[in-house]
Amino acid sequence: MTRSSAPHSTTAAPTAAVRRRGRPRKEDSLAQETRQQLLRAGLEMLTEKGYSAAGLDEILRHAGVPKGSFYHYFSSKEAYGQALIDDYGRYFVRKLDRWLLNAGREPLQRIADFIDDACHGMQRHEFRKGCLVGNLGQEIMALPESFRQQLSDVFNDWQQRLAACLKEAQTQQQLASAVDCEQLAAFFWTGWEGAVLRARLEKSNEPLRVFAAGFFQLISRS
Amino acid sequence: MTRSSAPHSTTAAPTAAVRRRGRPRKEDSLAQETRQQLLRAGLEMLTEKGYSAAGLDEILRHAGVPKGSFYHYFSSKEAYGQALIDDYGRYFVRKLDRWLLNAGREPLQRIADFIDDACHGMQRHEFRKGCLVGNLGQEIMALPESFRQQLSDVFNDWQQRLAACLKEAQTQQQLASAVDCEQLAAFFWTGWEGAVLRARLEKSNEPLRVFAAGFFQLISRS
Repeated sequence: MTRSSAPHSTTAAPTAAVRRRGRPRKEDSLAQETRQQLLRAGLEMLTEKGYSAAGLDEILRHAGVPKGSFYHYFSSKEAYGQALIDDYGRYFVRKLDRWLLNAGREPLQRIADFIDDACHGMQRHEFRKGCLVGNLGQEIMALPESFRQQLSDVFNDWQQRLAACLKEAQTQQQLASAVDCEQLAAFFWTGWEGAVLRARLEKSNEPLRVFAAGFFQLISRS
Repeated sequence: MTRSSAPHSTTAAPTAAVRRRGRPRKEDSLAQETRQQLLRAGLEMLTEKGYSAAGLDEILRHAGVPKGSFYHYFSSKEAYGQALIDDYGRYFVRKLDRWLLNAGREPLQRIADFIDDACHGMQRHEFRKGCLVGNLGQEIMALPESFRQQLSDVFNDWQQRLAACLKEAQTQQQLASAVDCEQLAAFFWTGWEGAVLRARLEKSNEPLRVFAAGFFQLISRS
């Protein structure tokens, strides 16, 4: 990834450490909390509506943060968007790893587990929420150009994690050795984003299931 | 489809016929031309930016139509959006039929021809333009609820045309008789919209090719 802002991580810590000499810890932790509040509100609104439809005013209202203080936490709306993509990318990686690195299950079963979890998640949110990266990818022509590489990097990161799981399936002879795991992982994420789109449109898990069935059929015959 | 407005068709003709008694033909044809201009400008902007990012003011400027006269042609922004979806749906059906009903080619080759044409089209527009139905599907939570069924109907229409082509492949024994053509067609459109999204993000036909390769691999092994 190309960006430097890193909420939910230790990137903010050095700044806090430098400031600590002259400032009480409480203020730093409050600032950090407000920043998190802004990110949470943004993620909630953007996974639902996308970037263009979610006005900054609406996000600030939702977060309960006064407009005047926004630029205290983010230098611009673009920097805020970058922090949101980064935050979502890392949230999703934690989720993916929970399933794809689960040594208690066979590699291909782990992929099925991830899909099941995604279906339950979409249903739980009544198909209102999509994938932030898919939403912003679709809107790319209306977004700051810096988002393009960042979104692409997030996709590639997810892809590599899936490819690693597929390679483990190969090692365990669940998958033919001739299969190109990188290509298969690219195929999965490409189609999966379309399935998420269609599931939201139809308020149904059926498109996710149809795509998953095709994917496993392709795998089983490889 | 559930809507009544039908640009590029004969729906406007009865009104014109009634009016003709008291009005010159020229005025009707000018009105029709302005309506088309608004639809063309809208399609151009919405396939690129989506609905939320493309403001009505910008579309009107692009069409060279004064704001005051918009409601002469469309009763609301929602009605305009419905006319755009309808117009795009029919434009795309003409394109699909050109490839999928081409009796000079074998059925599976027709699908490959459609994919080739889509790749060339995306490249020609430098990956700026996506699928209007995909773009609006992604934005569904920020759009009028009436768009949901309409977009879903358009997808189903395309799906049926692809399923018919796949059934022809079955009849010609290009495809195993056990294959569920409806399911396979649903799989294709679900993944294809994801591939279009990714192709625009990466400014490359690679995602379209990766998805098409997986689809044909799935078919060849069915």
